[in-house]
Amino acid sequence: MTDPLERNIVDLAIRARVASRRTAWLPTDAKNRVLAEIADSLADRATQENLLAANQTDLEAGRAKNLSAALLDRLALNQSRIQSMIDSLREVAALPDPVGIVSRMWTRPNGLRVGKKSIPLGVIGIVYEARPNVTVDAFSLCFKAGNATILKGGSEALSSNRCLVGIISEVLSRHDVGDACQLVDSTDRQSVALLLKQEEYIDLIIPRGGEGLIRFVAENSRIPVIKHYKGVCHIYVAGDADVGMALNIVANAKVSRPAVCNALETLLVNRDIAPRFLPPFGQLMEAKGVEIRGDSETRSLLPDAQPATEEDYYAEFLDLILAVRVVSNLDQAIEHIEKYGSSHTEAIVTNNCRLAQEFLDKVNSSVVLVNASTRFSDGHQLGLGAEIGISTTRLHAYGPMGLESLVTEKFIVYGDGQVRG
Amino acid sequence: MTDPLERNIVDLAIRARVASRRTAWLPTDAKNRVLAEIADSLADRATQENLLAANQTDLEAGRAKNLSAALLDRLALNQSRIQSMIDSLREVAALPDPVGIVSRMWTRPNGLRVGKKSIPLGVIGIVYEARPNVTVDAFSLCFKAGNATILKGGSEALSSNRCLVGIISEVLSRHDVGDACQLVDSTDRQSVALLLKQEEYIDLIIPRGGEGLIRFVAENSRIPVIKHYKGVCHIYVAGDADVGMALNIVANAKVSRPAVCNALETLLVNRDIAPRFLPPFGQLMEAKGVEIRGDSETRSLLPDAQPATEEDYYAEFLDLILAVRVVSNLDQAIEHIEKYGSSHTEAIVTNNCRLAQEFLDKVNSSVVLVNASTRFSDGHQLGLGAEIGISTTRLHAYGPMGLESLVTEKFIVYGDGQVRG
Repeated sequence: MTDPLERNIVDLAIRARVASRRTAWLPTDAKNRVLAEIADSLADRATQENLLAANQTDLEAGRAKNLSAALLDRLALNQSRIQSMIDSLREVAALPDPVGIVSRMWTRPNGLRVGKKSIPLGVIGIVYEARPNVTVDAFSLCFKAGNATILKGGSEALSSNRCLVGIISEVLSRHDVGDACQLVDSTDRQSVALLLKQEEYIDLIIPRGGEGLIRFVAENSRIPVIKHYKGVCHIYVAGDADVGMALNIVANAKVSRPAVCNALETLLVNRDIAPRFLPPFGQLMEAKGVEIRGDSETRSLLPDAQPATEEDYYAEFLDLILAVRVVSNLDQAIEHIEKYGSSHTEAIVTNNCRLAQEFLDKVNSSVVLVNASTRFSDGHQLGLGAEIGISTTRLHAYGPMGLESLVTEKFIVYGDGQVRG
Repeated sequence: MTDPLERNIVDLAIRARVASRRTAWLPTDAKNRVLAEIADSLADRATQENLLAANQTDLEAGRAKNLSAALLDRLALNQSRIQSMIDSLREVAALPDPVGIVSRMWTRPNGLRVGKKSIPLGVIGIVYEARPNVTVDAFSLCFKAGNATILKGGSEALSSNRCLVGIISEVLSRHDVGDACQLVDSTDRQSVALLLKQEEYIDLIIPRGGEGLIRFVAENSRIPVIKHYKGVCHIYVAGDADVGMALNIVANAKVSRPAVCNALETLLVNRDIAPRFLPPFGQLMEAKGVEIRGDSETRSLLPDAQPATEEDYYAEFLDLILAVRVVSNLDQAIEHIEKYGSSHTEAIVTNNCRLAQEFLDKVNSSVVLVNASTRFSDGHQLGLGAEIGISTTRLHAYGPMGLESLVTEKFIVYGDGQVRG
């Protein structure tokens, strides 16, 4: 291991691993104090000036590299975005500690008392794009759950991230856990690949970003990865649905923020309700500027709609485009979801209890809703208090992940001398 | 994809995936009926004769290949081993169904009722050695949890496994889920590597076998793997321990079955109790035929002990050999466990409540015991009802895994028209 970059990555992974033993034992109030002190530090005027100056360096380099306006916007910090970081730190401090909870305890016939108790995962690596707000956000959630964190943000944000991790680490040092937040301080793409090989020291990798980033991480990691590639979310409007409610939910799911993963991408409409539902739906979508791509039955009722191709039903448009299909019943809707869906989020609109329960039972996407917008598929909206990411694979966590997805459970056993016969 | 082996593996993975949608919805009593009918079938005399004949084919080929006596013993079936399979099927049928449980439900300020409900993982691949009993065992647990199973057993057991999967599949077909148990019917080692690439269709791989098999699977899998490499289990005898209890627990942990992963490998003895504990301990170990490898302090009290090397403290002996070290306090014991341990199972012997709690709090191995033998680190012994494997990595499951480790939870949401503001 003579490569200095590799030595550097291994070294910071080991330091995080060692620190994780200390963070695992920190009492709740010590962790909350750390988060509050980081918030205080970020609220300090001189600190803010330094941070904005570092961010300016990133922005200027980004402009020189002709980054798109959207990327520059995500990269930019300002007073109000710093205030959001501060607010979010205080919110995380106020959340219940997920560590040390004995969820169950039972007694065996031989008198052994067996329980399951939550403990931190250990060391969590976050690989993300040039969004400095993720730095503070991801660290604060991992830390609250007793973990050490290794951050690898987009190279374009390196100056900002250095400054932020400096602020975090100064507070951590005061509490004797100075190594609990490590920054991969490199713009070499190889650094990510090296990080993903440190399975001896890192317990989990969470990639946050576009599908390309996530695929790169998933394909190169020797460490478990929690991820979702895309959200091809469906709403099924049942034959008995309240048309007004269905229109309202569909419009919210499609239009309120089309570029996010819990936005609606394909609408499935029961044949019985199609003649009543589709015409007002078509008018509403036209008013909202949504392009409709439908099957032949849809187009027989909405002559202005484009024909939907097979690819349209697989597509995550992330745009004001909606695929529509008329189906004959719940089973056909579920079949469609299983074939084209991404296991992210699906909803049904119905007033029929039996149908609602059947949809909830049979659809095994990570979030399944009755009579509510797919846009609620979000850690905050579901009441998790926070969101570190979302998983569409079923191992460890499924759906939006809050603090409780950043811990695991060990077995604890109280005996009084028992041996095995 | 012109390679016939690859086509075969992809095909069976797809069939398992499709079948998993049906097994996920099977009611509890249908699953139990399937398990009971497989048990009945195995109890049938003609079936047993076929099975024993198939096993004989494997055994003869094994003898011709000069397999070791131990391997041949594991491969061999007989009446009593078949009876164990039957008993185990009936036990699994009697266990509570882990699917469909709403563990929690809460109401959001906007009236949404949000819950978490258990669902199967989907398709589980089991990669194991030439032990036909694992075939029935692993299938029955995966199936009870609503999953489809793909089995890849050791090539030496292929005839036996073909016969067993034939029995299972015949019953499954009668219940319309004929594809829910797939056998990789190939002796080509490449078939495992191909199986491990089917991340599109398989949700989890559980390797069962020696460290070599597990490392091969972990290093080649694109699918999440739940595994443990080894069990370097420790017992710490505190300064205040009851000597009689400590001797009894240590002897049980080391001697009752030295070749299994929850057997004791290193004993840590508090300096204060060493003069009282080590001499009778030395006599006991000598009587049991256990070789002691100790540090200098141990050897000053047990002059016949061998000197322990650094490697001895990392070793999983799986034999009548025990490493011993004298430590000055709990912190030093924990430091030793963190450095040399494998996160499997550790125990403390003490009557001091504070020490016991501190050990339980600070040691984050998958099973941590007070005043009980490490040999209790087992799914049946801990009351899980069954054991599909053990995990020493912290994602998804940690420690012995029962049925509840073969499911995950989705979010279910009941609304009455809510949209996101």
